[in-house]
Parts: sequence; C-alpha cells; structure tokens
Amino acid sequence: MEKVTVIKVGGAVVEQPEFLDELLGNFCQVPGLKTLVHGGGRSATRIAAQLGIETKMVGGRRITDQPMLDVVTMVYGGLVNKRIVAQLQARGVNALGLTGADADLIRSHRRPVGDVDYGWVGDVDRADGHMLSVLLSQGITPVVAPLTHDGQGHMLNTNADTIASTVATALAPYHEVTLTFAFEKMGVLMDPDDDDSVIPHLTYADYQQLKQSGAITGGMLPKLDNAFMAIRQGVRRVIITSATDLGGGNGTTLELE
Amino acid sequence: MEKVTVIKVGGAVVEQPEFLDELLGNFCQVPGLKTLVHGGGRSATRIAAQLGIETKMVGGRRITDQPMLDVVTMVYGGLVNKRIVAQLQARGVNALGLTGADADLIRSHRRPVGDVDYGWVGDVDRADGHMLSVLLSQGITPVVAPLTHDGQGHMLNTNADTIASTVATALAPYHEVTLTFAFEKMGVLMDPDDDDSVIPHLTYADYQQLKQSGAITGGMLPKLDNAFMAIRQGVRRVIITSATDLGGGNGTTLELE
Repeated sequence: MEKVTVIKVGGAVVEQPEFLDELLGNFCQVPGLKTLVHGGGRSATRIAAQLGIETKMVGGRRITDQPMLDVVTMVYGGLVNKRIVAQLQARGVNALGLTGADADLIRSHRRPVGDVDYGWVGDVDRADGHMLSVLLSQGITPVVAPLTHDGQGHMLNTNADTIASTVATALAPYHEVTLTFAFEKMGVLMDPDDDDSVIPHLTYADYQQLKQSGAITGGMLPKLDNAFMAIRQGVRRVIITSATDLGGGNGTTLELE
Repeated sequence: MEKVTVIKVGGAVVEQPEFLDELLGNFCQVPGLKTLVHGGGRSATRIAAQLGIETKMVGGRRITDQPMLDVVTMVYGGLVNKRIVAQLQARGVNALGLTGADADLIRSHRRPVGDVDYGWVGDVDRADGHMLSVLLSQGITPVVAPLTHDGQGHMLNTNADTIASTVATALAPYHEVTLTFAFEKMGVLMDPDDDDSVIPHLTYADYQQLKQSGAITGGMLPKLDNAFMAIRQGVRRVIITSATDLGGGNGTTLELE
C-alpha cells in the first residue's frame, strides 16, 4: 500500500504569516502523498469580534450558534483554507481545499444537547476514504478545514484533531497512514516545563501509567485518546511533534505496544 | 462526448434563502453531468460593511484591496460556496466546492493598473478542463466560486460570468458543453421593459445588429460578448434564461450562425 502522511496543524502556527510560511515550507519537504488538516480558531474569534459576535467557549470547545457557524464557515472554509491552498500552489504542491461537505467527505450529526448546548457542532459519523484516495492518486494534496455536514443541508463545526484522526482512519484501508499532530511543543513531555523531556516512544500501556501518575494532563489527554483510537482503527503510527520538525523524526511516536 | 451543463447563477438568486432553495431544486432536475458557478457580491458587500470595510465599485466591478480580498475569499469561497454545497448534498447531488486555486483549476494574473487600480482582481490565463472532467467522471458536481489565483500565493477576485465561460471553454475538449447563464429575466429581451419579448435564438450577426440599433445595451453586452467568445472556443451552445427555468428550454439560445 502506498504511504500517506496526514498532518494536522493548528493554533498560532496556521494563523500568523511568518509561522505559516515556515510550516508550509516544512510541509512541502514531507515526501510522498500527504494531506493537511488545519484549524483556525484564533482567526474565527478575531473576525467574530469584528462582526460584534461574542465567542463563548466551554471546556475549550466553541459554542456555535447560527452567527458563529457563519463565521467559522467563512473563516475555516474560506479565509484560512484558501490562503493555505494558494500558498501551497505557489510552492508547486497541487493542493485542493475541502470541508466535510465537499464530495460528502465527512458526515456528522449535531451534538445532542446535554449539560451544554454546543449549537452547530458535529460529531463524526463516517468519512469517505475512497474519495480521498482517488484525489491523492490524481496528484492532489487535500487541505481539510474543520467543518463537516449533516446531510440535511447544514454545515457543522468539528474539532480539527477529530477531523485529522477521522481522515487518517478513513484512509487506512487504502494506504499505510502516518498521522502527525504538529503543535507548539517538541512532543509529549515527561515534564511540561522542560522542553527537553520529550518522550520518544509512547505505548498505550505507558500512556495509561503516565495518565494515572498525573504526568500527562489537560489538553494532551483528548489528543492522545484520539491518537490511540486512530491506531486501533488501522493508522500505522501517530507522531506528535513540533510544526518546525514535520517529518524530521523527532517528537513522540505512539504505538499500541 | 458526454454532455455537461455549466450553469452560472448570480445576484439575488444565490443569496436569498427562498430563491436559493428553488434554484437548487431546479438545478437538481438538470439531467446529466453538471457544474454550478455562483456569485455572491451582495453578501460580500453586506459583510464588508459589518466589518467597517467600504465597498467601492467602478463600472460594476468591485475594487479589491487587501481587506476586501479577505472578505470575498471568506464569503465566496466559504460562506456562499459551502452553503450551496451542503444544500446540494442534502438533495443527493455530490457537490464539491472549488475556487480557481483548488487543484490549480484557474490561473490568472493581477489586472494591470490602467485608469483604475482594481486591486486584487484577476484576469484569467488558463483553466484545467482535464481535472474538472476527472471530477465529473467520479460523479462529482463542481461548485465554483468566483475566485482564482496567480500561482504566487495570492487569491484573486474574478468576475463570475468570466469564471463560467472559462470553465465551459476548458471542458469543451472533453465534453459537449452547454453553458447557461441564469438570471432574473426570462432571456435576452427585444424590449427591456417587456418580459414577453424574449429572443428565442440569437446569432452573432443578429447580435451585432441589435447592438448597433441600441436594442441590447448595458450589462447584457459583456455577458453576450463573453458568451459568443465561449461558442467560438468550442462550447456547443449558450442559453440565457431565468433561474426559475433551468433546463426548461425557454430563454435565449445563442448560436454562431
């Protein structure tokens, strides 16, 4: 099976021109077939504020009422996505921007109202790995925005880490998939305050221990749960690394055992 | 060669929910392979105003400085495009939203500064009809926003009528193409004040006569020049009709002779 690298970049990395330029330069160096998944929350918050729309977050998740859905559809699917696509094209990468609605790529359902009503937020039901594989085989590099749709005419806001593992998992029957989460840190750290404490390999058993001991906490937990789920569903390996080191072989590699 | 219908819809038709719903219903009834090209100027003007950005038009064309480029990229490529894609998906049409940057579909150059500096406005250099044909053969219905790119990392704002004839012309070597411009009127009128005066067939010679006699004027002239150019470049026929009558056989059919 041909190899595919799915790279998720989020946060400041995709939203500040100088970081974005460096990131896309690194992305172009990754050999073989690849797919980029991006965020855009900071831009959405900024443009929402300019439009007089208040951003409400619960547990790090954006409450997405109708005006905020319009904002994230514009910002993730338009502004951020097309900026990346145009810049990859300038670097000779044949990028194609997609949301989950395009080619019915990722279908989701609106999250049921529990303690919190997240609004137009989508939990993923299924993704079309075959269509992605067809695009890759045409020399296309998909650039996927964190938006899905419900099949009933509504766009839905979906977490970019979830989009990345969904895309990687959907490609697994057709390709040998490496999923890379690129962020500000060099990898999963033994000591959050020590950037030199990167754990090079992390098995699921190690992870459970470090979770229990309290060494790994906070926003890293859903990322790692997500990552191990992807591996159980056929993704060959997950790498958590710095956006400055895409494909550089540093960072933390996750394995089942 | 398999038939393809390229339909351009603009103006109020794509921007008011009740019109859009009817339009997409009509679009779904058009048999065979098809591509939709949309505008979005009214939404861009509205959202620009909400962001405190003034819309400046010269001769019906939008002056596109950097803040306005961000607005049209968001609105055409994100808000309007994804709304159409999600609603077509709900109707069982496997739509995929594209700008000219996506898959390097339409390359353009920034319009040189003459009497007017239009800013980030692109005049088309070339389009990739082969890629569009590959997508169509995969059961995809492309939905194209009026944006292009310059291959140097910049998005460019490009007139939607131009996008439509560019797409139709690019498909002509691979398909028997009908290009339909859908708008508010029933077709090209002999008397602009009489909706019953639709000209059913218009040859290039007829058009020259009606232009000279002053019967056809204003915004219809660039549309028709554009349309006859597309026919000379291999598009089989151009139909100018009402958005309520897509594929209905009414309206004005243009032929070279």
